Amino acid sequence: MSEDEILNKLLSHKLSFYEIDKIVGVSEAVALRRRAVEKLTGVRLQHVSRFSVDASSVAGRNIENMIGTVQVPLGIAGPIHVKGEYANGDYYLPLATTEGALVASVNRGCTVIREGGGAVVRILKDEMTRAPVFVCENIEGVVKFINWVKSNINRMKNAAATTTSHGSLLGVEHFVTGRNVWLRFSFDTKDAMGMNMVTIATDAVCNLVLEENADVKLVSVSGNMCVDKKPSAVNTIMGRGKTVVAEVVIPDKTVESKLKTTPEKLVEVNYRKNLLGSIRACSLGFNAHAANILSAMFIACGQDAAHVVEGSTAITTIEKTDIGVHVSVTLPSLQVGTVGGGTHIDTQRESLEILGVAGAGEPEGNNAKKLGEIIASAVLAGEISLIAAQAAHQLVDAHKRLGR
Amino acid sequence: MSEDEILNKLLSHKLSFYEIDKIVGVSEAVALRRRAVEKLTGVRLQHVSRFSVDASSVAGRNIENMIGTVQVPLGIAGPIHVKGEYANGDYYLPLATTEGALVASVNRGCTVIREGGGAVVRILKDEMTRAPVFVCENIEGVVKFINWVKSNINRMKNAAATTTSHGSLLGVEHFVTGRNVWLRFSFDTKDAMGMNMVTIATDAVCNLVLEENADVKLVSVSGNMCVDKKPSAVNTIMGRGKTVVAEVVIPDKTVESKLKTTPEKLVEVNYRKNLLGSIRACSLGFNAHAANILSAMFIACGQDAAHVVEGSTAITTIEKTDIGVHVSVTLPSLQVGTVGGGTHIDTQRESLEILGVAGAGEPEGNNAKKLGEIIASAVLAGEISLIAAQAAHQLVDAHKRLGR
Amino acid sequence: MSEDEILNKLLSHKLSFYEIDKIVGVSEAVALRRRAVEKLTGVRLQHVSRFSVDASSVAGRNIENMIGTVQVPLGIAGPIHVKGEYANGDYYLPLATTEGALVASVNRGCTVIREGGGAVVRILKDEMTRAPVFVCENIEGVVKFINWVKSNINRMKNAAATTTSHGSLLGVEHFVTGRNVWLRFSFDTKDAMGMNMVTIATDAVCNLVLEENADVKLVSVSGNMCVDKKPSAVNTIMGRGKTVVAEVVIPDKTVESKLKTTPEKLVEVNYRKNLLGSIRACSLGFNAHAANILSAMFIACGQDAAHVVEGSTAITTIEKTDIGVHVSVTLPSLQVGTVGGGTHIDTQRESLEILGVAGAGEPEGNNAKKLGEIIASAVLAGEISLIAAQAAHQLVDAHKRLGR
Amino acid sequence: MSEDEILNKLLSHKLSFYEIDKIVGVSEAVALRRRAVEKLTGVRLQHVSRFSVDASSVAGRNIENMIGTVQVPLGIAGPIHVKGEYANGDYYLPLATTEGALVASVNRGCTVIREGGGAVVRILKDEMTRAPVFVCENIEGVVKFINWVKSNINRMKNAAATTTSHGSLLGVEHFVTGRNVWLRFSFDTKDAMGMNMVTIATDAVCNLVLEENADVKLVSVSGNMCVDKKPSAVNTIMGRGKTVVAEVVIPDKTVESKLKTTPEKLVEVNYRKNLLGSIRACSLGFNAHAANILSAMFIACGQDAAHVVEGSTAITTIEKTDIGVHVSVTLPSLQVGTVGGGTHIDTQRESLEILGVAGAGEPEGNNAKKLGEIIASAVLAGEISLIAAQAAHQLVDAHKRLGR
Repeated sequence: MSEDEILNKLLSHKLSFYEIDKIVGVSEAVALRRRAVEKLTGVRLQHVSRFSVDASSVAGRNIENMIGTVQVPLGIAGPIHVKGEYANGDYYLPLATTEGALVASVNRGCTVIREGGGAVVRILKDEMTRAPVFVCENIEGVVKFINWVKSNINRMKNAAATTTSHGSLLGVEHFVTGRNVWLRFSFDTKDAMGMNMVTIATDAVCNLVLEENADVKLVSVSGNMCVDKKPSAVNTIMGRGKTVVAEVVIPDKTVESKLKTTPEKLVEVNYRKNLLGSIRACSLGFNAHAANILSAMFIACGQDAAHVVEGSTAITTIEKTDIGVHVSVTLPSLQVGTVGGGTHIDTQRESLEILGVAGAGEPEGNNAKKLGEIIASAVLAGEISLIAAQAAHQLVDAHKRLGR
Repeated sequence: MSEDEILNKLLSHKLSFYEIDKIVGVSEAVALRRRAVEKLTGVRLQHVSRFSVDASSVAGRNIENMIGTVQVPLGIAGPIHVKGEYANGDYYLPLATTEGALVASVNRGCTVIREGGGAVVRILKDEMTRAPVFVCENIEGVVKFINWVKSNINRMKNAAATTTSHGSLLGVEHFVTGRNVWLRFSFDTKDAMGMNMVTIATDAVCNLVLEENADVKLVSVSGNMCVDKKPSAVNTIMGRGKTVVAEVVIPDKTVESKLKTTPEKLVEVNYRKNLLGSIRACSLGFNAHAANILSAMFIACGQDAAHVVEGSTAITTIEKTDIGVHVSVTLPSLQVGTVGGGTHIDTQRESLEILGVAGAGEPEGNNAKKLGEIIASAVLAGEISLIAAQAAHQLVDAHKRLGR
Repeated sequence: MSEDEILNKLLSHKLSFYEIDKIVGVSEAVALRRRAVEKLTGVRLQHVSRFSVDASSVAGRNIENMIGTVQVPLGIAGPIHVKGEYANGDYYLPLATTEGALVASVNRGCTVIREGGGAVVRILKDEMTRAPVFVCENIEGVVKFINWVKSNINRMKNAAATTTSHGSLLGVEHFVTGRNVWLRFSFDTKDAMGMNMVTIATDAVCNLVLEENADVKLVSVSGNMCVDKKPSAVNTIMGRGKTVVAEVVIPDKTVESKLKTTPEKLVEVNYRKNLLGSIRACSLGFNAHAANILSAMFIACGQDAAHVVEGSTAITTIEKTDIGVHVSVTLPSLQVGTVGGGTHIDTQRESLEILGVAGAGEPEGNNAKKLGEIIASAVLAGEISLIAAQAAHQLVDAHKRLGR
Repeated sequence: MSEDEILNKLLSHKLSFYEIDKIVGVSEAVALRRRAVEKLTGVRLQHVSRFSVDASSVAGRNIENMIGTVQVPLGIAGPIHVKGEYANGDYYLPLATTEGALVASVNRGCTVIREGGGAVVRILKDEMTRAPVFVCENIEGVVKFINWVKSNINRMKNAAATTTSHGSLLGVEHFVTGRNVWLRFSFDTKDAMGMNMVTIATDAVCNLVLEENADVKLVSVSGNMCVDKKPSAVNTIMGRGKTVVAEVVIPDKTVESKLKTTPEKLVEVNYRKNLLGSIRACSLGFNAHAANILSAMFIACGQDAAHVVEGSTAITTIEKTDIGVHVSVTLPSLQVGTVGGGTHIDTQRESLEILGVAGAGEPEGNNAKKLGEIIASAVLAGEISLIAAQAAHQLVDAHKRLGR
């Protein structure tokens, strides 16, 4: 078929968008679909067509029915000084956002953190989870099933191991409601964020479960206790992905010189806004705008942008101490990776390279951990700056000036 | 200064990244910063440099310290048939994502929705909020302050009106903890998502408040009861942005032919996973993956990606009826706009044009409402497809095949 | 039938426990049932039989199948000095509990409050709610229904008014999920806690709704958005029953002399325990032990003990100020009454009389409001004392000594 | 001193209520305080004075400043047929309440459960918790502290063992926010509810912690992650006290003959009310009125009435199956005991004797477990009956008739 023939079939719905991938090459398919959309909608697509990333490495892997790319402005903040176990030194932060004032805000936070000697960061837990839901005949069946699970953890680990050489099943927690059972499997996924890996591994484990427990029915390989991309207490309490804490002690004089406010006001804004305010709103997030920094870093670095949901449950504390103002952010559930997902796409990979974390670490897992530490530090920077702006009543001015 | 001089000053930290915007033109500044980052990090940035969008319209408005753009793969799904009050007809959905299988999944949902006669959508509420936190001397001061607020709503509306000709203050709710008072102001922001608009308007209202209530102290113009970019019950209960419901009745035969499962299994997966599972996880989101669709549509259309947090609190229901399977998604808090933010950027604007909603509507507000209806329908499509895949135990296969 | 005949029929299950109320007098029925239980279980019931309250005023009104009473130890704390709008002066607090140290703890708090000049209390809202759930055919039906509700509020008020001369329907809020609609009706119930009153009134309103909305189906007169006796954000955010704040400023010297700790430690324990601790636990209650005081006051005063659930969502704040330590408790949802329920039972009425709030107030509603203010003050006393004990690390000693 | 002298000193505040316990015997002290309250308030206390329980075994152990008792009406429901691991057979349920219709409602549920062959009950977890909060200097101190905790679990067990011969420390979980650390200790407390026991044991463990970790500061022996008497996700997710599930399959014909409704309607009310309604309310409780049954059983049996808070987070499910309607209740956090607290008081002990669970079990722990199984079954009965009443739209009638 000629391109025009294909186009006409697309326009007359005799061919579906996805069917032409089998007929023409990737670039042609992208172009033909885009032309079809132009015809169907009467819109000129002069910009989504102008991309540099390698479509053939993206189409069918990261995207279906590709017609081009969206260009998200990329700014740079920092350097931020990080003192983690994996990240150690100065890092320039790539932030992809359309929200004016965000990069400037993070940048100011980086300056303040440098004056405080750097952000100390620690990863307290690092496990990706998947939780299928099963249904038993009755509660006696539930008890029998749970006993089987407790006795067969090694066999389940082996089943998971057949599906991947990178990750490994670490453990399983069970939860029951009536005759429903959730098994929340925890995995080490090394440098991958790991959702795909753990889904495939969990599927293999489920097969073993079903073979040996004839009375147990699998309802769904994901039973929403994982919890993926929904705010939840279980992730706050038990963690998902990396549980990270970042902190800095800001010298009192820096509070005044750089943040234009006082230690007392920083403490008060955090107390009345981030703690009492979120409490009054019955919120699961106790921070100023962690989601902003996370979404900008995630988009820049090829992470799954929907994981900003879990990240938004961060808790920020600000306390006056003898040596300065202690500020911390705790991210119970930060899901990041340096391999897989969008990390290999050309522009995203460049962002990871700026941070020195593209690809697999040595040993495996260290790059993702390093990325997690840097991102948590960036969130710390963002929190410091916005809370200070609110304490100094500068927020509106910043928005007016920078056109947020 | 020559470019090299500037570059050297950047490298030796004698100039800050943001200072060169005043010295050279936008394009030069972008290029110089990028070159500086290359030197500082030893990384070649061959792709973030290759953008087509107009830097001068973006730098200083959507981004600071710009060094280029990140290209996010854009796929197309649909058409989806929408029967809303503002969106009526077939729409091709632009989805910017790096998550394999997502576009294909939404696309399948669109097919199913078409066979069900289209997605019926209604916006039940449309108010953007901002909630400053004040502190009074004591509870008697709180009562006095609340009485003032109740008696001065019109004056507060006038104060807000001085700051914008587009939006308007609709009302205010008050919340108290001890001697702290939150005023949650609700605005009509027309076609803008409106966070910037309502922050500036709230600031003007706060000035009036402070002038007339000498004993009341403003702690922060945002007191976290807004609630912006944190999961919260107050947004689920009272709404923020648009509260939208989308539904479709899927013919039983379509469930089998297109979704490869049965009505009973769809109902069961939703019940045991989205309801019981999220309940067991103490989650605020009762859906399969609303955040995925929202983040893909938001990035494509220049929305604030961090607002996917609130969107993730969607509730999905699936019920068997005499005429087919009734599926609904309820989004209590969907924040979208067609003017402001990233909506004007070239690639993002093209996405909005594909949907026929770029810029201001006629009358004002209609384009944003139309966008809200389309996005809610897209979420419905995504929910149908993923829940069906899990019911049919196809999820793993899809991931394996499409390399999620 | 003779008593022995009846007893034998009870023992041989030829008569049910409740059937004998129609055959013999109240006292005999109580005794016969008790004797039957003794025979059936082989247990001597020497104490539940020894009650003084008038069984005939209780059986069939407050209890079915009565066999006696349980005696709950009653202690007295105070006086507490209350400066409310309804309660003004010194009050002795009746507390019915089996938890050692509780009365002593509240008593100490009362002393401290007196030294702080008394507890200032304000009721910010006072509305009892009931929320039936309806289901419509689809979302278009939902919109039509909501419009009917908005247009017929006065007729609904009239319908409610036919059922009671004491209470009145104040307003209605609607909430939607898919095709389900909750109407959350708010009532003024005067001196009654009012659950019974609002259920009957809501039933009358539902009849009107169903008559005029043929397509709308009533699922349940209570749809769990009321919310009765379950912890919920909607009650915290919108209130249920009385929303009350009580506060006191404790002189610094009293903190040391009576509470054996320092202002700084009080602030710190509240911050790290009641705020950060409850945040970390994803709790809806931000207090030390409000439920203890509430259950003791509720049992003493004939309140519904299950309403301690909502009371447990109280928020406690402690802040250092120039004039002393400011402590507040905010009870978003306190449900109390002085008529109806168990308030008329002899011992419970005596507890209410000790507080000067037995029966209807003048004007109606004032006694219940006065009771609400006193109870909130009692919670304040309990919070001060326990937090101080924990700050001074005395908790364990108190438990050991008093045998909690 | 003569009684009159003492009385005069009480009235003139020269003696405190609690001081006279050292001067006169228990009965005299109770009487004198009561007379003082009568004089001080002008109220005759003819009923709180008429108690049969042994004041000397209660005063100073369960209550301070005792003036008498409150008589709570006691009704009997059942028998309920329970098929647990500890409770097996028919049990008559003692319910102390002032809420009309409650005993009748539970009674009907018992009948239905008998027709379904009995309530099958299983305890899935049984651990009482206490969680002190510590603060470290910084996050590095946190990591060091956690490592110490992980390495010293046996020494902590030994420290706990020095304080009690009944209970034992089972394990510890740690949680971090910033530089704050909560250690959530889990104990086996045998037949005791155990709050007192675990507080004393935790205090001993804290002493060990502080001795060996000089940089760690104990803020409070209870850090609100326990979580005691506040609704919380951590208790739902990880359990506190007993995690219990009770279920029954109701024959379809029983639904019609006894519950006057249909299986479909039962399922629908539970779905739209207990699941969707509680979801919409952002509630942590997904049941109809578990708190009612719990408070009535708790007061009757000398349990801590404030623990109804955690009980109210029960989840009720109703599902249609081939063999009837499957109903379950899941209580993640049920705290009960048969020794300690109010269990020894004469009337309360009689209630426990009716259930055959007074005092310590053989082996220890079995009586408390048996009580837990019976109470869970009672909650199941209550849920079935109220949901059925709402399905049949009988609730209002029941309230009107029985004067709830």
